Amino acid sequence: MNFFSKMFKVTQLSTIRMIVLFYFCAVIVSMALLSLPIFHNEGVQLSFIDLLFTSVSAISVTGLTVVSTSETFNAAGSIALAAVLQFGGIGIMTLGTLIWLILGRRIGLRGRELIKIDQNRTSFGGIVKLLINIFKIVLLIELIGTIILSTYFLNYFDTWQEALLQGFFGAVSATTNAGFDITGSSLQPFAQDYFVQFVNMILLILGAIGFPVLIELEELIRKKSIGINPKYNFSLFTKLTTITFFLLILAGTILILFLERNGLFFADKSWHEKLFYSLFQSVTTRNGGLSTMDMNEFSSPTLVMMCILMFIGASPSSVGGGIRTTTFAIMVLTIYNFAKGKTSVKVFGREIEQEDIIGSFIVITTAGMLCVVGIITLNSIETFSLLSITFEVFSAFGTTGLSMGITPYLSTPAKCVIIVLMFVGRIGIFSFLFLLRSIGTRESYHYPKEKVIIG
Amino acid sequence: MNFFSKMFKVTQLSTIRMIVLFYFCAVIVSMALLSLPIFHNEGVQLSFIDLLFTSVSAISVTGLTVVSTSETFNAAGSIALAAVLQFGGIGIMTLGTLIWLILGRRIGLRGRELIKIDQNRTSFGGIVKLLINIFKIVLLIELIGTIILSTYFLNYFDTWQEALLQGFFGAVSATTNAGFDITGSSLQPFAQDYFVQFVNMILLILGAIGFPVLIELEELIRKKSIGINPKYNFSLFTKLTTITFFLLILAGTILILFLERNGLFFADKSWHEKLFYSLFQSVTTRNGGLSTMDMNEFSSPTLVMMCILMFIGASPSSVGGGIRTTTFAIMVLTIYNFAKGKTSVKVFGREIEQEDIIGSFIVITTAGMLCVVGIITLNSIETFSLLSITFEVFSAFGTTGLSMGITPYLSTPAKCVIIVLMFVGRIGIFSFLFLLRSIGTRESYHYPKEKVIIG
Ligand SMILES: [K+]
Ligand SMILES: [K+]
Repeated sequence: MNFFSKMFKVTQLSTIRMIVLFYFCAVIVSMALLSLPIFHNEGVQLSFIDLLFTSVSAISVTGLTVVSTSETFNAAGSIALAAVLQFGGIGIMTLGTLIWLILGRRIGLRGRELIKIDQNRTSFGGIVKLLINIFKIVLLIELIGTIILSTYFLNYFDTWQEALLQGFFGAVSATTNAGFDITGSSLQPFAQDYFVQFVNMILLILGAIGFPVLIELEELIRKKSIGINPKYNFSLFTKLTTITFFLLILAGTILILFLERNGLFFADKSWHEKLFYSLFQSVTTRNGGLSTMDMNEFSSPTLVMMCILMFIGASPSSVGGGIRTTTFAIMVLTIYNFAKGKTSVKVFGREIEQEDIIGSFIVITTAGMLCVVGIITLNSIETFSLLSITFEVFSAFGTTGLSMGITPYLSTPAKCVIIVLMFVGRIGIFSFLFLLRSIGTRESYHYPKEKVIIG
Repeated sequence: MNFFSKMFKVTQLSTIRMIVLFYFCAVIVSMALLSLPIFHNEGVQLSFIDLLFTSVSAISVTGLTVVSTSETFNAAGSIALAAVLQFGGIGIMTLGTLIWLILGRRIGLRGRELIKIDQNRTSFGGIVKLLINIFKIVLLIELIGTIILSTYFLNYFDTWQEALLQGFFGAVSATTNAGFDITGSSLQPFAQDYFVQFVNMILLILGAIGFPVLIELEELIRKKSIGINPKYNFSLFTKLTTITFFLLILAGTILILFLERNGLFFADKSWHEKLFYSLFQSVTTRNGGLSTMDMNEFSSPTLVMMCILMFIGASPSSVGGGIRTTTFAIMVLTIYNFAKGKTSVKVFGREIEQEDIIGSFIVITTAGMLCVVGIITLNSIETFSLLSITFEVFSAFGTTGLSMGITPYLSTPAKCVIIVLMFVGRIGIFSFLFLLRSIGTRESYHYPKEKVIIG
């Protein structure tokens, strides 16, 4: 064990505090960067709270905006913002994975093997390799995305510079699931362009599906290409998160189609338009935050349902937020197994640890309470409808970035509430709870156990 | 082990099904009873769905009404309705306790001792004694309540018959936490009468605090009166549920006062009026469903907060519904202990069982999902505001009976949704999940455990 990993073991807790501190610093640096007048369009004046809001939204890759990105930032500013998103997105993937290593958890058998940690010992070399690996994969995805989108955007924009900027920003915003746009109205200009939507969905999914999944996939492709190990075993984590991820997208699409079957917006649309609107908006609730239509076009039940989807969010160790797919999957599996009278939770020939079950429920209930407190607080300082406030709160906690349009009109205290929600949603409920923890208190005494009536 | 208890052990599961079946029958019998024309005022025509709704509401002592009780039922009808409430209320207390015995759980050390069950063996004698004990205590409380209220109501009503009927119905409705009223507007006529409110709050609390608490209290009083055993140890259950119960009432009162500080309704009220309005409405969210004011007078954040209070509900083994106080307490204690880095949940010198922790979380999350599905469904078939629908759903699931006034105007499908919510809220999430269980499947094989990333 070298010094670095030793320090990790000793100050496990302070390391999580350090990561939170790191986020704070990242916000301050991006505030400084985004406040530079050279990045602004002429005549733009950003207030302190709007600058803070924009920076937290960018670092947490949420995508809620109090000022129009395209009206505020010039071309250079857009590139600077893309850099912040890049930094936020990659930081989140890396730090999200690191937190789990620090907590002495493995990312699953294969992940553990890949990042060269043996028996909970985190080696410095392994971490550096992990960071580089994440960096390489994300950059590769973004590069391919930029090339495809920029080339295609030559049809839409007059100059190749504009097409390149739009393609580059779009690819970065989609891959990091940032939800920012420089079109001025998200992906609404491409509501009829299935190709742009398709590329965006692929990028959104690659960003939100989780880094361990990408690395296992990369290994599979590499092994397949040199013709060895045709029987590849994905880790439990990869199976669980991927299936949950796609089931959520499928369920979201079907529910939107069903709930909007008599809706005004879908009334004059063809079946493939309905399908693409539903599919894209379902994918975007995983964490993307981009949209091909105005959220206010949806009816109230659809929007409530989308709140739940945003609350669940993306895979762990991805750029996404929310309670995470695995947490939700473990909850559903536990309830299902309980209802079937089973004493353990089995899935894909593996058993879920009791510790992870309780952990999942802690995350869900804490997150739920946090959102309810957020809703009541916003509701008591703003006059917007309960629905738009609820939507805003779940979008902020899930770092999704969808909005019914109230964000720019929030008062300063309300903006602060959303900032806190984005920040906690970003660092995650576990890190949030860890912040409250005092160092080194493992109690060694026990009381007699006594049952109580519940339910 | 006699035949009865043996049958219990063997058909644990079918017993829960039997209890659910019993509720079904109780609903049908009360439908037959309440449909009798001799109980109706002249010219009243009850539709099938309204009769079903009223019966489920009465048997589950919820108190949501689609027809005005005072306009529909005559004096004899009111007494018949009181009998149904009585039957529902006592049935719930008894069956709620029985379910826990059937599940092989003890009501706490003292409860177990009191109802003479040794080592999970439920004796028939013990059960009969328990039933009689519950019956005696409830009747005693109602008798005292009726005498006090009727005597006092002589000031309000012209004839002693009317005062007696109002006092009797009021005492039964309050003790069983039924929330029905024959005043036509709940306790609003007594909004300035602190004595009536005080008596009602005592009755509501006695009904909702849980039968094991009452029986331990009764034992304490009895022992104190004959001068023995001055150091009495309450069970963990009694301590946990009672403290949570009163903390919720306190928190509710303070939050209403705080959230309504600038509200229109409180603007012209004195401090003691504000206090009593807040206190009574906080007590009533435990499960009472009576109110001294129109819910629409409250601002939106207060109503959202009250939804949470109704969701939590009353103590287990009481006439109340919701997820129950102990479930909520265990969740809070688990999250608190996790945040403090503790590995076990300790309270009052006892440790909470892992099984109860997971059980609590299962109840909370299943209930939460059920309510969200209810909200989305109602929202898609009705045009009422999201707030009044949310309030109605939580009130139905918590069997609270408070409403923002939309109940009579619900369409038939919407009424069916509320009926299902009242029914499930009544039988409880555990029984609900048990219904899905197939008999005798305890698996004996195990898979290797594998960790996954959550949160
Ligand atoms: K986002
Ligand atoms: K009630």
